[in-house]
Amino acid sequence: MSEAERPPQVWRNVRLATFAPTLPGIGAVEKGALAIRDGRIAFAGAEADLPGAALAGAETIDGEGRWITPGLIDCHTHLVWAGDRAHEFELRLAGASYEEVARAGGGIVSSVAALRAASEDDLVRQTLPRLDALLAEGVTTVEVKSGYGLDLPGERKALRAARRLGEVRPVGIRTTFLGAHALPPEAGGDKDRYIAEVAGTMLPALAAEGLVDAVDAFCEGIAFSPEQVARVFDRAAAHGLPVKLHADQLSNLGGAALAARYQALSADHLEHTDAAGAAAMAASGTVAVLLPGAYYFIRETKLPPVDLFRRYGVPLAVATDCNPGTSPLTSLLLAMNMAATLFRLTVDECLAGVTREAARALGILAEAGTLEAGKRADLAVWSVERPAELVYRMGFNPLHVRIRAARD
Amino acid sequence: MSEAERPPQVWRNVRLATFAPTLPGIGAVEKGALAIRDGRIAFAGAEADLPGAALAGAETIDGEGRWITPGLIDCHTHLVWAGDRAHEFELRLAGASYEEVARAGGGIVSSVAALRAASEDDLVRQTLPRLDALLAEGVTTVEVKSGYGLDLPGERKALRAARRLGEVRPVGIRTTFLGAHALPPEAGGDKDRYIAEVAGTMLPALAAEGLVDAVDAFCEGIAFSPEQVARVFDRAAAHGLPVKLHADQLSNLGGAALAARYQALSADHLEHTDAAGAAAMAASGTVAVLLPGAYYFIRETKLPPVDLFRRYGVPLAVATDCNPGTSPLTSLLLAMNMAATLFRLTVDECLAGVTREAARALGILAEAGTLEAGKRADLAVWSVERPAELVYRMGFNPLHVRIRAARD
Ligand SMILES: [Zn+2]
Ligand SMILES: [Zn+2]
Repeated sequence: MSEAERPPQVWRNVRLATFAPTLPGIGAVEKGALAIRDGRIAFAGAEADLPGAALAGAETIDGEGRWITPGLIDCHTHLVWAGDRAHEFELRLAGASYEEVARAGGGIVSSVAALRAASEDDLVRQTLPRLDALLAEGVTTVEVKSGYGLDLPGERKALRAARRLGEVRPVGIRTTFLGAHALPPEAGGDKDRYIAEVAGTMLPALAAEGLVDAVDAFCEGIAFSPEQVARVFDRAAAHGLPVKLHADQLSNLGGAALAARYQALSADHLEHTDAAGAAAMAASGTVAVLLPGAYYFIRETKLPPVDLFRRYGVPLAVATDCNPGTSPLTSLLLAMNMAATLFRLTVDECLAGVTREAARALGILAEAGTLEAGKRADLAVWSVERPAELVYRMGFNPLHVRIRAARD
Repeated sequence: MSEAERPPQVWRNVRLATFAPTLPGIGAVEKGALAIRDGRIAFAGAEADLPGAALAGAETIDGEGRWITPGLIDCHTHLVWAGDRAHEFELRLAGASYEEVARAGGGIVSSVAALRAASEDDLVRQTLPRLDALLAEGVTTVEVKSGYGLDLPGERKALRAARRLGEVRPVGIRTTFLGAHALPPEAGGDKDRYIAEVAGTMLPALAAEGLVDAVDAFCEGIAFSPEQVARVFDRAAAHGLPVKLHADQLSNLGGAALAARYQALSADHLEHTDAAGAAAMAASGTVAVLLPGAYYFIRETKLPPVDLFRRYGVPLAVATDCNPGTSPLTSLLLAMNMAATLFRLTVDECLAGVTREAARALGILAEAGTLEAGKRADLAVWSVERPAELVYRMGFNPLHVRIRAARD
């Protein structure tokens, strides 16, 4: 059933967390109503203000006081992978050294080998249970990065699999080309040559095939230098593609400022970002995407400078970073709890971080991320007494229903 | 349908994590089979050894290589509560002081007031979603403590609600009387007088009503002294009831040794336990129940002495400690991940900690906790390639089916 055929719907007796920028906090409307028509939000506000026209021919639903939020947005994932890294986790806990894990076939090279060996169908099939876990918690848009192919066929396969996820499930998929994720084994240690291939061959080819919504890179001592990242970003700019950056996770290479220089949609991780980086991000409107799942899983101890971001007015988003090596996390609700518990984000910051600010981090705020008339009707309806429960609970899913009324 | 009417069932082509004490690690049987008859495990072992008699009249199921574990056991919860503490969490994150939270009605007194105001039906209704979250992850036995009533009617109501959970859901409920949880507001600060009421009035009355499977206490500066706990435990012993203890969570008052002196089934939390406490627990066979959810949620920094417990041979269990104030956690899978990530338990220790050792901590090892012929057929069937996935993943539920074939 296309959105045009879907009957209009009106939710009455609901409470809305609109995240409208004109309202404070979560933009709460206590005695609210929400109307959907042609896959769009036709009205979101006080039930007393609901226009009569919204009801014409519409199915009316009594929300029984439930809360409605925008559909959740997971704005940073590596969701498409093949194989299994649970054994590596097990070995590490049993005391195995990094070398022993590597000898047992662990590490990112194992994900690269598994992805290259898998078919596109395999990738979709293996990824769907992870995607379904996200959707079951009210997620309506997921960003998916490549970066386990590390050659043109592998990166293409991953991005095509990501696109197909959006065909077989009612979810918006935003693809990000992350060729500059790691050096592939066959590169023989030559990072410059590999970066030339990423920027000069892979990026143009994949962009031409319509597989790339944004371009990302991993700027770190163990990955690529700011100069190498800049070569990729220059090419992205030439193709009119927005950029994002894995920045300052393990050390401060000035990644935040680099991202800001390219007006990046977001810089992500940011545990080691300093005041100059935060100031640059604020000036460029670059969102700070916080990834507490990875912080928790790898037992990081350096906290991201949340107070600095607040002081400079850097927008804060929260995501799962779902990946097999450092964050096998398929719950955005749990990511919020970790952002609150570990990073001391407030409840309102967590909730905005998986809705409005996550939409900003993907460049889709005009279409999603808030409950405002005209936007796509991506909604989550929750059986909770107050939105704080979505952040406070651990391992509990109070979703009543998820609505994704229109395609991207 | 009672267990006698249920047709016998045989699972073929499965892998078993038996946790049989005669086998190493998780007691794995790779080419396994498992037969259920009259609600009991009739056979669990190599498919090649499956006796022909097991197949007579039995439904045969191809397990397609899935793993079967014992049904999971959550051996420490405060699952029955009323009301909502999410607002307190929100206030704390927004910077409210302890006093401000208390003035806003937060803290354990709010749970006591809410429980006293709720009917038994209310309690069951409010608890069921939490219980259902646990069951959805393969849990077949849950321990439930009282301790938010803090007077005879309130404690009775909570324990009766707990018993009813086991009537309306196919799950084993073990009730624990925790009158010595906190001092009720009306006690006017007189701990000795309240303990006399717990030991002299409440415990005998509730035991006589068949509502008490075990007796617990909270031994801590902010709760009750070792001497006060001993008065409760002496009375429990007089009634032939086993004991458990919240011990050494925030400071070392010698709780582990106290528990051991009373041959406690378990001592729980144990962040501050020393070598003498571990040695005493080993000698008495007292299980160390680790509660990483509370450690995580209250941002504790003192780790329980896991190496000490290993050195002395203290059995290790893992539980959710599900409660509204310090661990609103309804995922035993996530508790395992936290035990591994935060406490560095091995995968095998985590898995044994929610099966065999959790059964030991409840005194039900003769009936549950392992896959051995004669035990109750409490099983969880998992769509995983290896059991380590149950510990490694965060916010993902690979349960295929949960089986609880017989009542306690
Ligand atoms: Zn990432
Ligand atoms: Zn407890």
